[in-house]
Amino acid sequence: MLNPDRYFDPDPTIRSLARRLYMMVKELPLVCPHGHVDPRLLAENAPFPNPAELIIIPDHYIFRMFYSQGIPLESLGIPRRDGGSVEQDQRKIWQKFGENFHLFRGTPTSCWLKQEFEEVFGIQEPLNAKTAMTIYDQIGEKLSQPEFLPRALYERFNIEVLVTTDSASDSLEYHRKIRESGWKGRVIPTFRPDKAVNILQPGWKDEIEQLGRSTGREIASFEDYVKALEERRRFFISTGATTTDHAVVEPYAAEMSRGEVDALFDRALRGEATEEDACLFTAHMLMEFARMSVDDGMVMQLHAGSFRNHNDVIFEKFGPDKGCDIPVACEFTRNLRALLNKYGNEPGFRLILFTLDESTYSRELAPMAGHYPAVKLGPAWWFHDSREGMTRFRRRTTETAGIYNTVGFNDDTRAFPSIPARHDLARRIDCNFLGTLAAEHVIEEDEAQAMAVDLARNLVKAAYKL
Amino acid sequence: MLNPDRYFDPDPTIRSLARRLYMMVKELPLVCPHGHVDPRLLAENAPFPNPAELIIIPDHYIFRMFYSQGIPLESLGIPRRDGGSVEQDQRKIWQKFGENFHLFRGTPTSCWLKQEFEEVFGIQEPLNAKTAMTIYDQIGEKLSQPEFLPRALYERFNIEVLVTTDSASDSLEYHRKIRESGWKGRVIPTFRPDKAVNILQPGWKDEIEQLGRSTGREIASFEDYVKALEERRRFFISTGATTTDHAVVEPYAAEMSRGEVDALFDRALRGEATEEDACLFTAHMLMEFARMSVDDGMVMQLHAGSFRNHNDVIFEKFGPDKGCDIPVACEFTRNLRALLNKYGNEPGFRLILFTLDESTYSRELAPMAGHYPAVKLGPAWWFHDSREGMTRFRRRTTETAGIYNTVGFNDDTRAFPSIPARHDLARRIDCNFLGTLAAEHVIEEDEAQAMAVDLARNLVKAAYKL
Amino acid sequence: MLNPDRYFDPDPTIRSLARRLYMMVKELPLVCPHGHVDPRLLAENAPFPNPAELIIIPDHYIFRMFYSQGIPLESLGIPRRDGGSVEQDQRKIWQKFGENFHLFRGTPTSCWLKQEFEEVFGIQEPLNAKTAMTIYDQIGEKLSQPEFLPRALYERFNIEVLVTTDSASDSLEYHRKIRESGWKGRVIPTFRPDKAVNILQPGWKDEIEQLGRSTGREIASFEDYVKALEERRRFFISTGATTTDHAVVEPYAAEMSRGEVDALFDRALRGEATEEDACLFTAHMLMEFARMSVDDGMVMQLHAGSFRNHNDVIFEKFGPDKGCDIPVACEFTRNLRALLNKYGNEPGFRLILFTLDESTYSRELAPMAGHYPAVKLGPAWWFHDSREGMTRFRRRTTETAGIYNTVGFNDDTRAFPSIPARHDLARRIDCNFLGTLAAEHVIEEDEAQAMAVDLARNLVKAAYKL
Repeated sequence: MLNPDRYFDPDPTIRSLARRLYMMVKELPLVCPHGHVDPRLLAENAPFPNPAELIIIPDHYIFRMFYSQGIPLESLGIPRRDGGSVEQDQRKIWQKFGENFHLFRGTPTSCWLKQEFEEVFGIQEPLNAKTAMTIYDQIGEKLSQPEFLPRALYERFNIEVLVTTDSASDSLEYHRKIRESGWKGRVIPTFRPDKAVNILQPGWKDEIEQLGRSTGREIASFEDYVKALEERRRFFISTGATTTDHAVVEPYAAEMSRGEVDALFDRALRGEATEEDACLFTAHMLMEFARMSVDDGMVMQLHAGSFRNHNDVIFEKFGPDKGCDIPVACEFTRNLRALLNKYGNEPGFRLILFTLDESTYSRELAPMAGHYPAVKLGPAWWFHDSREGMTRFRRRTTETAGIYNTVGFNDDTRAFPSIPARHDLARRIDCNFLGTLAAEHVIEEDEAQAMAVDLARNLVKAAYKL
Repeated sequence: MLNPDRYFDPDPTIRSLARRLYMMVKELPLVCPHGHVDPRLLAENAPFPNPAELIIIPDHYIFRMFYSQGIPLESLGIPRRDGGSVEQDQRKIWQKFGENFHLFRGTPTSCWLKQEFEEVFGIQEPLNAKTAMTIYDQIGEKLSQPEFLPRALYERFNIEVLVTTDSASDSLEYHRKIRESGWKGRVIPTFRPDKAVNILQPGWKDEIEQLGRSTGREIASFEDYVKALEERRRFFISTGATTTDHAVVEPYAAEMSRGEVDALFDRALRGEATEEDACLFTAHMLMEFARMSVDDGMVMQLHAGSFRNHNDVIFEKFGPDKGCDIPVACEFTRNLRALLNKYGNEPGFRLILFTLDESTYSRELAPMAGHYPAVKLGPAWWFHDSREGMTRFRRRTTETAGIYNTVGFNDDTRAFPSIPARHDLARRIDCNFLGTLAAEHVIEEDEAQAMAVDLARNLVKAAYKL
Repeated sequence: MLNPDRYFDPDPTIRSLARRLYMMVKELPLVCPHGHVDPRLLAENAPFPNPAELIIIPDHYIFRMFYSQGIPLESLGIPRRDGGSVEQDQRKIWQKFGENFHLFRGTPTSCWLKQEFEEVFGIQEPLNAKTAMTIYDQIGEKLSQPEFLPRALYERFNIEVLVTTDSASDSLEYHRKIRESGWKGRVIPTFRPDKAVNILQPGWKDEIEQLGRSTGREIASFEDYVKALEERRRFFISTGATTTDHAVVEPYAAEMSRGEVDALFDRALRGEATEEDACLFTAHMLMEFARMSVDDGMVMQLHAGSFRNHNDVIFEKFGPDKGCDIPVACEFTRNLRALLNKYGNEPGFRLILFTLDESTYSRELAPMAGHYPAVKLGPAWWFHDSREGMTRFRRRTTETAGIYNTVGFNDDTRAFPSIPARHDLARRIDCNFLGTLAAEHVIEEDEAQAMAVDLARNLVKAAYKL
C-alpha cells in the first residue's frame, strides 16, 4: 500500500532526483541521538504487550488527537494517577482507534503508523472501523514471535546507536545490564538534569536527595549540588554518554554571583524559593552546564519553548506527557547572549538548539548557527517533526546556516516500533528538499548526493560525537 | 475569461486531482456562518444602488489599497463623518477604480472581483481605464432587473444559511421581518457584545442604556449587566442564533473576584475606568461569556489581534472600518490558559479561535486545537483570506490539529455579491491542498474526496451547530 | 556551468513563463538605491587587489560561515583592531576558501559567487580544494587588466545609478571627485546619521564634533544639533542624494517635549545619558527625521531589528560588521503609530521599511503598506536576500500590499563585483514568482510582463526618486 515515491514532489524532475538521492540513504543504519525509549525494554528484552498497550497508550500524539475530538482518555485506557477505573479491554480501545483513524489524515502520525503497520507488522489493509479487529489480531500474533522481541527489532531496524534520556540521579542500571548482557546493540544514556534544576517542582527535594544518595554525599549547599552534578556527568560518560539535555520554557541564561546563588539554593532547600528564584536559578544553571560541557566535552542540547501541562484537569488526573504541552514564543538572541559570549567561541563546546517557535528559525537560530562555532541547530522538533515542518526548517535555515551547522535527524520518540518510519520520513523529506535544489540548479546532483549522506548519517555522528 | 483551473498548482498530477476534488464540492450550497452582510438588505429586498455604491464604497479592501497609493478617500465617495463634501459622481468614482485596478494584481480582491464581474454580472472584458464606463453601464443595467434583487441573488448563489453580526442590544427587527415575510432564506444573527464590553469606548454608556431598554430594566450594577446579557442571548437564540463573537486585541482571559468586578463596573458607569480596568474587564468578560456558552450552548468565536483605527486622521474624518486596522502579535498559550482550564474540557463548549498572527498557527493554535475538546480553529482570517493565506493555514495547522479541528470557511464579508466568489476561491484552495497531499501519497484519493466535502460543508455545519 | 533556467521552478509551465518574463528584464540597467560600496573605489579607479582581499576579506557573509565551522578569522586574514598578526598569505587564504566552499551549498553566497566567477571573471570550473589555486591565478590576472578597473566594471555591469551609505558628517569628497572627474557614472550618497544619534556609542561625541566642524558651528544644544543635521541634509541633496537611512533595533518612534529633549541632549553631551535616554532619543529623532523628510523631500529608509555585535569576543578583536549581528523580533504596529499618525498621510513623505523579522511581513508590514500612503516595503533584507527569502517576501506581502507598495530590489552590498549576480538572482526570483501566478491563472501573462518590468526597474526609480 505504501507508495515508493511517497512524500516526494510530484513534479517529474524533482521526483526522479529525490528518488535517486533517497536510494543512496535508504539503507544507511539509523543513528538515534535523542529519544525517549525506555532502556528497560532492551535490557529485559521481554515480548511487547498487546497492540493497544504498544501503540496507543504510550503515544501522546495519538490520544491527544482523540481527546481533542471529545473522546475521554479513560476510554483509551490511559492510566489514572489515582488508580481510578479506565478501559481495560484492549480490543475495545483498538476498535475505537480504528473508528477514528481518519482524524489523522494528513498528519505525521498517520504517515508513521501506516508505514509501521505495513513494514514492521506486514499489515496489508488500511486501518478503519471494519479492519480494526483483524489488524489487532495480526499485530498481536506477531508480538508473540521471537522476531518481534525488542532486540530483534533493534537489529532488524538497523539501528547503529540508540540514545535514551535519563535523570541526573538515574542509576543507569538498565544501560549497565544491556552492556553486561553481551548483546551488541549500542544503547547509551543522555544526562538530563531538569528534575534537579526545577526548584519549584514538587519532586525537586526528592531528586536532590536521590542525587545525594547516588553520589554518596548529602547535598547541603550549592557547592555540594554542583559537585554532585559533575560527578554524575562523569558517571554518565563512563556509561557511554556523550550528551546532555535541558528543557526550559524560556532559553534564558545568566550568571548570578556566587553569594546570590548560594543563598538562592538555600532558600530552595528550605522550600522558600519564589517564581523569580526558579527563573534565575535555571538561567544560572544553563551557564553552569555550559561550563561543565566545556570541561568534560559533553554535547549540550537545549529544548526551549514548551509550556508543560497546560491543562490542569488532565495533569491532575493523568500526570505529565499527556498531550497537554502547548508551545510559547521564544527569544534566543538576547536570552542566550551571556552564554554565547562566555562559551560560544570555545573550540570544544557544542550547543544544539531546539525550538517550537518556527518564527525563530530564520530570524535568530540560523543567524546564530551561521556565526557561533558552538551553535548547531537541532532538527524540526515535536509538532514540527513532519513533512511540512521539516521542509520549513530546511527552507528557512539552509540559506543562512547551511546544512553543515545542522545535526541530522532525531526521532525523539517513546514509540520504539515507529523508529524506522520516522527516519524514513525524514530521509525522504531531506532528499526531496535536495532534489528540489538540484532541479532548480542551486546545487549540482553530485553535491546533492554528498549532502543527502551528510544529512542522513555524517552530521549526526559528528555533532553528537557518536 | 476565468480559467476553469485557476488557483490550482500547474503540476499535471496535482492539477487533475484538484480538479476532480473541486468537481465534487463546486455545487454544494454555501454555508456562511460568520459575516457582515446587513440583514436589512434581505428584509427590504430593494434594488442595489449603482455599481460604485454597491462595490467600491462599502469595501475597505478596495479603498485602502487606493488610499495607500495616494488617492484621497473623498475622491472615492467615502462619506465623511462631518458630512463634508466627497465625490458624488458615481461614474467618476468607477472610472478611477478602472484606472487603478492594476494595483490589485495578485491580490484576493482581484480574484474575487474578476469572478463576481463575470459570473454574477456577465461582464466579458477586463476592467481597466478604457472599459470602466462600459462595465459600469452593464452592471448598472443588471442592478435594475428583478433577478438582481438581494433575495434573488441569495437564491441564485445557493446560500443555505447566512449569519449576520449584531450588537447585544440590537432589536433584530430585520431578522424578524425576514422570518415574518415568509421568504424561505435562512438569515440568522450572531450575538456580538463588543460595544457593551469596551468600557472605554465613547459609545459604551449608550450601549449599556440601550441594553437596559432592550431588557426593560435599568443596568445599575454588574449583576444587572450580566443578567441583561444573558437575557439578550436567550433572545438571540430565540431568533435562531447559534453563535457569539468577540473581538479583542489580546486574547487574555482572567477571572476577577466578584467584589473587584462589581467595583470596576461601578467605576466604568461613573466614567472613571482606566486603561487597566478596560483590559481586566475584557479578560473577565471572556470568562463570563465562556461560562454563558457552557450554559446556553452558543458557540463562542474569538477574533484576536486587530489594532483598530490605527490612523487617527482617517478615523476622525471617516470613522471605523476604513482600512486602518493593523494587526499585532498575539499570545494564546498563556492568555487563554485560565479559560481553557476552567471550560476547555467541557463537552458542550466550543471556542473557535481566529488570529491575524500567522506565527501562532503552528506554535500555539494547532497544538491547542489538537488537544482541548472545546477549541476549534477558525479559517484564515481577513488579510489571510487569500490563496497564499489559506494555503499557509492548512500547511501549518493540519499536521498537528488535523482538518477535523477546523471549521470550514467563513466569508466574513460585507460585500454580498462577492460571496460566491469567496467560497469558490476557498474551495479551490482546499482542493488544491488536498490534491497535493494525494499527489504526494500522504492521503489516498478517496480520503481526499471525503475531506473535500468535510471542508466545504460538513465541518462548518457541525462546528456552528447549523 | 550556470544553467540558464536556474532558480526557476522545474514545472514546465512555470519555467517557460518565468523564462519569458526574465528575458524581458535580464538586460535592463541596474538601479542600486541602497548599498555599501566605498565611493573611493570609483573616485580613484585603482585596480582591485588580489582575489582574497577583493572577495573574502570584506565579505562577512563568507567569513561568518567559516567561523561558524571553527575556522579562526585570523587565518582568513581579517585584520585585527590591535594590529595583531593575521594570515598575510593571500593564496593560503584562498586555498582555505576553496577547501571549504562546500559549506555554502544551498546558500545565496554560493549562488552569487558562482555567477560572479563565471560571468565577471570567466572561470570555467567549480571552486574547490583542487581548483582553488588555478582560479586564484585566473582572477588575479584579470584584476590587473584595465577592463577590470572599478569604472570599467561599473559600465560593463550596466549600472544606472549606485547609491552609497554615508555618515551625516561625511565630507562626500569621493562623491565630489567622481562628479568632477567628468566620468559619466552616477554615484550618489545616502544620508545615514546613526553615528550622530546613538548617544551611548563611544564615538558619539566625536561625531557631534565632526558634525559641528562640517557645518562650521559648534553643537552645544539640541537646537544646534537639529540645525546641523538639516544643513547636512541640504548638503547631501546638493550632491545628488535623494534618501536617508536609519538603523534601529526597535522601530520605536515617539516625540518628547522640547524641554525634555533639550535636557536629555545636554546629559548626553556631558556623558551622563542612560540606556533609557538613548532609547527615547532614538525614538524622538525618528520623529524629527520624518519631519525633515516631509520638509526636504528625502526618502526615509528604516532598517529595524538587528542586534549588532552580539559576540563581544569578535567585536573586541575585529570590530563591527564581522558577521556577529543577530536579528531580534520587531514590533511595528504600535511602535510606529505616532510617526504614521503625524506624517503617514503626508502626500510628499515616503518611509521605506526593512525588517529581519519575517513574521511581521504579513502581520504588520503589508497591512501598513496597504493603507498608509507614506509606507512602502523595502525588499527582503540581509539574511533574507536569497531565493527562499525573496519568495517568502512576495508570497506574504503581495496579497495585502500588492507589488505597487514595494520598491524593487536593493543589493545592499559592499562586494562591488557581486552586484550583477545579486540583481540577476532577484530578477529571476521575481519572474519565477510572477510566472507561478500566471501559471495558476491569478494574473494574465501580459500583466506578469508589466509587473516584471515594474519590479526590476520602475518601482525602484519611483520610490527612491531616482
